[in-house]
Amino acid sequence: MTLTGYSLIAGAHVAGPNGSTFGTNPATNETLEPPYTLINDEQLKSATEAATDAFESFSTLEPERHARFLETIAENIEAIGEELIVRASTETGLGVERLRGERARTIGQLRLFADVVRKGDFLGVRVDPALPDRAPLPRADIRLRQIPLGPVAVFGASNFPLAFSVAGGDTASALAAGCPVIVKAHNAHPGTAELVGQAVAKAVRDLDLHPGVFSLVYGSGSSIGQALVADPAIKAVGFTGSRAGGTALMRTAAARLEPIPVYAEMSSINPVYVLPGALTGDVEALAGQYVTSVTGSSGQLCTSPGLVFVPVGEAGDRFADAVARSISGNAGQTMLTQDIAASWEQGFNSVRAVADVDLIGRGQAGPTANAPAPAVFGSNLDVFANNHVLHEEIFGAASLIVRYKNVEDLIDATSKLEGQLTASLHVTGEDYAAAAALIPVLERKVGRVIINGWPTGVEVGHAMVHGGPSPATSDSRTTSVGTLAIDRFLRPVSYQNFPEELLPAPLRDANPWKVNRLVDGHAEIHQD
Amino acid sequence: MTLTGYSLIAGAHVAGPNGSTFGTNPATNETLEPPYTLINDEQLKSATEAATDAFESFSTLEPERHARFLETIAENIEAIGEELIVRASTETGLGVERLRGERARTIGQLRLFADVVRKGDFLGVRVDPALPDRAPLPRADIRLRQIPLGPVAVFGASNFPLAFSVAGGDTASALAAGCPVIVKAHNAHPGTAELVGQAVAKAVRDLDLHPGVFSLVYGSGSSIGQALVADPAIKAVGFTGSRAGGTALMRTAAARLEPIPVYAEMSSINPVYVLPGALTGDVEALAGQYVTSVTGSSGQLCTSPGLVFVPVGEAGDRFADAVARSISGNAGQTMLTQDIAASWEQGFNSVRAVADVDLIGRGQAGPTANAPAPAVFGSNLDVFANNHVLHEEIFGAASLIVRYKNVEDLIDATSKLEGQLTASLHVTGEDYAAAAALIPVLERKVGRVIINGWPTGVEVGHAMVHGGPSPATSDSRTTSVGTLAIDRFLRPVSYQNFPEELLPAPLRDANPWKVNRLVDGHAEIHQD
Repeated sequence: MTLTGYSLIAGAHVAGPNGSTFGTNPATNETLEPPYTLINDEQLKSATEAATDAFESFSTLEPERHARFLETIAENIEAIGEELIVRASTETGLGVERLRGERARTIGQLRLFADVVRKGDFLGVRVDPALPDRAPLPRADIRLRQIPLGPVAVFGASNFPLAFSVAGGDTASALAAGCPVIVKAHNAHPGTAELVGQAVAKAVRDLDLHPGVFSLVYGSGSSIGQALVADPAIKAVGFTGSRAGGTALMRTAAARLEPIPVYAEMSSINPVYVLPGALTGDVEALAGQYVTSVTGSSGQLCTSPGLVFVPVGEAGDRFADAVARSISGNAGQTMLTQDIAASWEQGFNSVRAVADVDLIGRGQAGPTANAPAPAVFGSNLDVFANNHVLHEEIFGAASLIVRYKNVEDLIDATSKLEGQLTASLHVTGEDYAAAAALIPVLERKVGRVIINGWPTGVEVGHAMVHGGPSPATSDSRTTSVGTLAIDRFLRPVSYQNFPEELLPAPLRDANPWKVNRLVDGHAEIHQD
Repeated sequence: MTLTGYSLIAGAHVAGPNGSTFGTNPATNETLEPPYTLINDEQLKSATEAATDAFESFSTLEPERHARFLETIAENIEAIGEELIVRASTETGLGVERLRGERARTIGQLRLFADVVRKGDFLGVRVDPALPDRAPLPRADIRLRQIPLGPVAVFGASNFPLAFSVAGGDTASALAAGCPVIVKAHNAHPGTAELVGQAVAKAVRDLDLHPGVFSLVYGSGSSIGQALVADPAIKAVGFTGSRAGGTALMRTAAARLEPIPVYAEMSSINPVYVLPGALTGDVEALAGQYVTSVTGSSGQLCTSPGLVFVPVGEAGDRFADAVARSISGNAGQTMLTQDIAASWEQGFNSVRAVADVDLIGRGQAGPTANAPAPAVFGSNLDVFANNHVLHEEIFGAASLIVRYKNVEDLIDATSKLEGQLTASLHVTGEDYAAAAALIPVLERKVGRVIINGWPTGVEVGHAMVHGGPSPATSDSRTTSVGTLAIDRFLRPVSYQNFPEELLPAPLRDANPWKVNRLVDGHAEIHQD
């Protein structure tokens, strides 16, 4: 596929007048062709207007055609072949195996959402039949369904050039809801973005949809992002990135005449709790798993375990020693960008500067540029409680082991944590009482609790929550991974006393889409 | 029941040091005893701290006890008897029949929510079973449920002293979700608030719950409200009132370190579309229904029809004439407060001052104080389009008939409306094609579309949406009436690889609460 270096606005390749940007190979710091031209405000406006124009037809697609659209995006991404993997690896420094896995996840996600579109549970259909003889007043027939919010702005993430970018979770869930999408490409992987953007635009053509259903725009820094979120045509925002970036978008969205929801997934240190029983088993293996979870993808994962609580005493010492040994053999991997590597270094130095924090283990720098040596620090609960810098995410391969005395200390420390995406507990049967005391505290802090596992590796399913209280995300009521993510882009509408002819299809007595419904408060299944 | 004039903080009567306020009889402008003392910030803090303390035990109640709590509130409100109706009528000027109906709705709502708590559908349980043999990677067992957000602040509404106040829809849905509630009493009906507050506090005692589950506070003006919304202990806000009031709370909530959702129901003019076929029937009856809907409760209803589109021509003229006749016999009813009556007068004068707006019908002033004569204005689409004041809600018995030529004009005018709670269509079979063209435009503007009915009279059921795009509400993704309102106070949490012993009850294989579940994407019914 030829890379044009242009934005894709409602099916057209559009050159921008505001200068250009280039991809960079972070392993070598070399610039990558082609240049990507940056659009101006009027060009952005043409994208949001096209999305508005596309909304009525796209939001009322029959489920089968709607589902086929998502599947066709998946097929078109697959059809790009190795070119996508090579370009993504060159632009991001991520390994080809990791990227093949990420592609499989991206495609699988689109196909899962297609299944969900066919089933239609997210339409949330409710029917309260008329009660004409009710006293003192009759009840009218009232029916409810969820409808899509309108055009959605999606911001590509640096660390998932496929699964959280142009056709990633935010885009897939917004399209599944029936919302046109405008993606702001991440400038760290512009070529990958264009390849995937072309695949989505081709699917729009393949299904003969309104071209405004999808646009991919390149613009300068944060200004295009702010303009996009401020545009009255945009009705919701999906973002994965830094706390500063997410917070800036939230401010803009809240200041609009019509405020809109911003779903920003921002920062998390993903605490892990090693309870005493877990150290009666294979401590070497546990330490190895921890190091793998910290260092995978150079630690550039939202769910990277940045904080591990380990008991004081001999067993905990053995765990820390095993971690030190395991990480010492670990070579740094290329980080996504020079800026991210510089920011990691800064975070590493900030933690190292804290009194009574020890560097208990470190790997080696990798052979490429921007591949710092992964690090594990150690400290205790008092130091952790009194140094806010130890509560901040270091994006990359660094983690902190905090030693604790008893479960009361853990509960106290947990109650003072900020909101997180995940918490993980390593336990055996003897720890269940302590775990049972901790879990209610954890539930109030996180979106997902894991027993005897590590937080990295986020399953895309129906029961996944990739979310959590602020500052992990901007809106704890949702998830950005899994099929529940569709609900972010919907709102309910009631239809009172409608004749069958005027009811939307899923609300008709005939139920032509065979959707499940809540009838007078009782669930009714209508599927094969 | 003795009125103390005190706040009710976690079960205790608390006198405030910040002066006092009195209820007023708006029919006579007389002050009502007792004085209500106003609390200070530390006293407010004691309420929010008690709510935080109550959260863990209240959020994990067994469904049966949880449901009984809601039912006991209903019983305790019923047990107050006529004293409640008399006090509410004296404080608000609303008639006793209207208030008996509102009490029935308030009690019925609590009982409906109790049923929903027993069924547990809102827990949204999802189970993705483990796939240990999946290639390339196994899948862990992952389960999801919705948990309550935490303590909720509720602001009593002036116009529904029972159904949208101390134990109204916001309180009932937050309590049903498992959230402790702190109600800021509306100072226009302090005695009614105390009577209901005592009934709720007694239910807390009757069920032996943590007293922090409920507090009712009296404070000065907006400052106590701002302090409540800014308090880190508060995790969500329910508000029904003015656009200025709601917007101020939204700003405070968005500026917090941890932003929280504000569910504010603010303003709506509830457009009604009379299509030509509807004027081939009994025009007198239709006009009478319109006047009844405009003047009921002195027009002080969120869903009062403030705007009616009527075709130009002879049939439309007959409708307008019939409206003028009908309203001329209509006497003004006492409004809720002197301020509200003054604000109505101001709105009336603003509309009257618009060139090419006619006063086409007017009733008489009522016999009491604060009972202005209801009014219906008339104009055309051009004037409506060019005068924003005609798009603003006049809270009270006033409405505007706008004459139109064809459905294209209607679609154009509708697309320029702000967000609304409702839209109503009056049609016969011959209008279905026009209605089918209008409905998709209306869906994007409103939360409820009504055919051949009037918007006032909001059914409390499973399929009701009392919500809509900004500025009708602050968050179009929700409803403040009906059982779907519970979802406002919930967020999802995933449990990965949990042993049966550590899983919360509704997620256990044994499913002791018999909740419906989505298993691997398929709905499973578990109820009798």
